[in-house]
Amino acid sequence: MSNKVYIVGAGPGDPELITLKGLKALARADIVLYDRLISSDLLKFARRARLIYVGKSPGSHTFSQKEIIEMMISYYEKGLNVVRLHGGDPFLYGRGFEEVIELRKRGVRYEIIPGVSSIYSVPERFEIPLVLRGVASSIGVATGTEDPTKGRRFIDFRKLAEAVDTIVIVMGSRNIRDIARELMEVLPSETPVAILRAYLKPELKIITNLKDIASNNINVEPPVIIVIGKVVELSS
Amino acid sequence: MSNKVYIVGAGPGDPELITLKGLKALARADIVLYDRLISSDLLKFARRARLIYVGKSPGSHTFSQKEIIEMMISYYEKGLNVVRLHGGDPFLYGRGFEEVIELRKRGVRYEIIPGVSSIYSVPERFEIPLVLRGVASSIGVATGTEDPTKGRRFIDFRKLAEAVDTIVIVMGSRNIRDIARELMEVLPSETPVAILRAYLKPELKIITNLKDIASNNINVEPPVIIVIGKVVELSS
Repeated sequence: MSNKVYIVGAGPGDPELITLKGLKALARADIVLYDRLISSDLLKFARRARLIYVGKSPGSHTFSQKEIIEMMISYYEKGLNVVRLHGGDPFLYGRGFEEVIELRKRGVRYEIIPGVSSIYSVPERFEIPLVLRGVASSIGVATGTEDPTKGRRFIDFRKLAEAVDTIVIVMGSRNIRDIARELMEVLPSETPVAILRAYLKPELKIITNLKDIASNNINVEPPVIIVIGKVVELSS
Repeated sequence: MSNKVYIVGAGPGDPELITLKGLKALARADIVLYDRLISSDLLKFARRARLIYVGKSPGSHTFSQKEIIEMMISYYEKGLNVVRLHGGDPFLYGRGFEEVIELRKRGVRYEIIPGVSSIYSVPERFEIPLVLRGVASSIGVATGTEDPTKGRRFIDFRKLAEAVDTIVIVMGSRNIRDIARELMEVLPSETPVAILRAYLKPELKIITNLKDIASNNINVEPPVIIVIGKVVELSS
């Protein structure tokens, strides 16, 4: 047997933003286990594969993470090539590494194929660079959701703001108002903020500032990438 | 005319880690202006293009940034498709955005095609995730070189260490000892550190800790990605 489990990053949503290596893994896949937000046009590249949706929507899990891993291993043990297709990059706020840990333990042959992360490619779509000579040289990336492992609601955004030039928040749509209020304790209230969705429909581009977010009820549906800092002013 | 300038991310070095969109731009290019560290196997996809090396090596610039931009525009004005091929992603510590600013001013049609950044794909190659549920949920990315625009040697790494779980340093090979000493003021001296090079020859994987770096003369050639934090212990 020379079959494998491929842990593949699909990129931010445009099917042509998968890597050539990811595409080849899809073309030779017998089974594709795919996440939410994976484009149906991308799945067409998996010409001969059985496609299994294993995405998680808020409140409705089709399969638990344990079930997904058991499926990957069971198809692999039948001699099949299995692609586990993650949105963005499999290790950046995905579950790819948790899968790798199990595959290691169980002696499964696997290969990790990185993908273009939405963390920078979504801002890039709106011509916002996260760093730029003379404007910003450091980036802080954090989730905007609670982190139960740390015993606090989320990361200390004040410390982050004092440490880096550009802040990027993933999974931040629900807590954006609280985060903005926290950031205003250390950053000017006019600090520009971009709330962005790209490569997925509907695209979204809100350019605002901390004060407006803190004082209004901005309701945005996930997924969004939130960028905070001077670089936001560079958008086209 | 429907020709364009394409600002393309080539990915971390493996020619198969370019995106499908980047590959298509190469295939239709008349001119490719390419950086250092771009694989010759990748350039083969630019079947009908004239290839022009515009890379910068420490101390020896073949072309200034201004000359590169003038070349891009002058070939574009002749009606040609121009690909400007950057290592990694064009906006992440590359000069892609500076080029976009000029193209905007000059009314040039352009398209930005993101690439897989080495910031996370190089650690991923060694099975180091930058975040993992229960271990690390935030990332700080900074350059290890001086930032003359800020009037200080480099970013305040102590503040960064207090704000995020995982630190990633690009362009850090020269100052790694000073950075480790600075970090030891706020982090345990046993904090794990990975010094990594992947997808380029020779690959490099040094797993060590702050104390060892601070007290020894570790000489590594650029380019390397340096990862600091608990996630380093997860490496295969």
